[in-house]
Amino acid sequence: MGSIVENVVSGDVRTVARLIRDIDDGTPGVRGILKELYPHTGKAYVVGITGAPGVGKSTLVDQMIYHLRSQGKTVGVLAVDPTSPFSGGAILGDRIRMQRHYTDPGVFIRSMATRGQFGGLTQSTRSAIDVLDAMGKDYIIVETVGVGQDEVDVVKAAHTTVIVVMPGMGDDIQVIKAGILEVGDIFVINKADREGADRTESHLRMMVEMDEDRYSKGLWAPPVVRTQALTDNGIEELLDQIERHGKYLVDSSGGLEIRKRPDRVREELAEMVKTRLIEKVTKKLIQTGEFERAVMEIAQGKTDPYTACDELIMPMLDIL
Amino acid sequence: MGSIVENVVSGDVRTVARLIRDIDDGTPGVRGILKELYPHTGKAYVVGITGAPGVGKSTLVDQMIYHLRSQGKTVGVLAVDPTSPFSGGAILGDRIRMQRHYTDPGVFIRSMATRGQFGGLTQSTRSAIDVLDAMGKDYIIVETVGVGQDEVDVVKAAHTTVIVVMPGMGDDIQVIKAGILEVGDIFVINKADREGADRTESHLRMMVEMDEDRYSKGLWAPPVVRTQALTDNGIEELLDQIERHGKYLVDSSGGLEIRKRPDRVREELAEMVKTRLIEKVTKKLIQTGEFERAVMEIAQGKTDPYTACDELIMPMLDIL
Repeated sequence: MGSIVENVVSGDVRTVARLIRDIDDGTPGVRGILKELYPHTGKAYVVGITGAPGVGKSTLVDQMIYHLRSQGKTVGVLAVDPTSPFSGGAILGDRIRMQRHYTDPGVFIRSMATRGQFGGLTQSTRSAIDVLDAMGKDYIIVETVGVGQDEVDVVKAAHTTVIVVMPGMGDDIQVIKAGILEVGDIFVINKADREGADRTESHLRMMVEMDEDRYSKGLWAPPVVRTQALTDNGIEELLDQIERHGKYLVDSSGGLEIRKRPDRVREELAEMVKTRLIEKVTKKLIQTGEFERAVMEIAQGKTDPYTACDELIMPMLDIL
Repeated sequence: MGSIVENVVSGDVRTVARLIRDIDDGTPGVRGILKELYPHTGKAYVVGITGAPGVGKSTLVDQMIYHLRSQGKTVGVLAVDPTSPFSGGAILGDRIRMQRHYTDPGVFIRSMATRGQFGGLTQSTRSAIDVLDAMGKDYIIVETVGVGQDEVDVVKAAHTTVIVVMPGMGDDIQVIKAGILEVGDIFVINKADREGADRTESHLRMMVEMDEDRYSKGLWAPPVVRTQALTDNGIEELLDQIERHGKYLVDSSGGLEIRKRPDRVREELAEMVKTRLIEKVTKKLIQTGEFERAVMEIAQGKTDPYTACDELIMPMLDIL
């Protein structure tokens, strides 16, 4: 096990690739390795990119990689697809667009999709970020597909969260939901040459400015950046804003490592407790056959789900 | 407490509205009422409607209500918004489109948005469905916003799941993801008068037909229905297909009440165990201050999240 940790820290691509696959698959024993890797984490800067399908996130990420590499930074990319039960799959087509970086040893790209037997994609993503961090990547970009709560949870692991929209989208209040707005540190209007960019921008600015608390407390006010990823426009400004947000985080943490800010730790620990608890308990209930017995009794009308649920978890509730 | 159950079963709107709000808020004591309501459930037919923002789900639901009412059926509607941390909010604008039914005592419409202190929106939705079911509604329509895993989980509570797209969307493989495709019993192309409907339909049919297992096992093959909800086109065909799917479910269950099919019970019980476990344990860890103590120790670098997590849940894991 020591050698896996050593190999990751020395940046061995094969070991890292296998470890991330094991995380995605929920292979036993991974947790011990992650625990040993923990002291080697906390150096990378993590950027989350989220937004509805079709807004051009992958092209944007591709250009970000290009610019970061020009600055001599190394980059890890995790493409996370919470709606797909398959690894790869739909997302693979997208990855092809990033293929010009595949031969660059300073870039490491992986897709994650499996929710594992017991869910916990957010936990898997956090673990994979740790691996890329320990591997020594300067920037880690986490790209998610979709606009649901899962995506919000996934991007919470990022230091800076970028919400990508396209012209016309910001006008539909449903697309930029309150939950998404709250986690956004930077808004990007991609395909900004299309009709309606002005209206989308003023709509976004209005929503940001509605959050008066932010201003009265001197908190970060999310900027709106216009990009055309396909023609490489606006990417440098986006990277500048990400850097500016990173500085804000460090300043407002009193010099504390971002990962160790109490608000971040709270999120991370809550997620871990939740995932681990469900995994352990579900595994036990399935192995002993108790779960299936309860299912059959409910199906036969001998009991109701509420009673059955309490009977299943009572041994644990008892000690609380 | 007996009188709450009696009032729900007799269809008292005020009691039902308060109970659903209490479910959404996670008010203590609700669980006992739900348990008592359980024997009064299992009669309603539950339809899930999901799809990306902007495809016209609310207009479609509005027309479905209209047609179902014409057939003399009573209807309950739950509008579920997993991305919004607020009750109402964004979704409220949509509900206005359904307002012509507000004065109809045969229709009951409510929005759910809060994830509760410990998450569990899927569980809350299932509970609210039970309430509308016990209330005596013939049809319950659950409308969700978005395309993430949360939406998939929410619609799993439905008997028939309808996936709504619009022309042009089916061509982007990202929009109709494998995970969504798997839960879809019926596909609707709304706004079917728009350009590209033919291509979207053939794309959808191709994806359905790719699932060869379905055919070899004689399982349900999801039909594709074209609608124009705004001009009331195709709604009757959609309702016919929903009824046809319902008959398929009953036939393939050997006459068993749909809710009591083992696959359904398994989903329901797993969700309930998960939600209840997290709620109980999290509450305990917060009340005793153990959680916050662990957070501070991690922030100060005295321990790592993996060790802290194990120490927090060890008392429970020990007895497993």
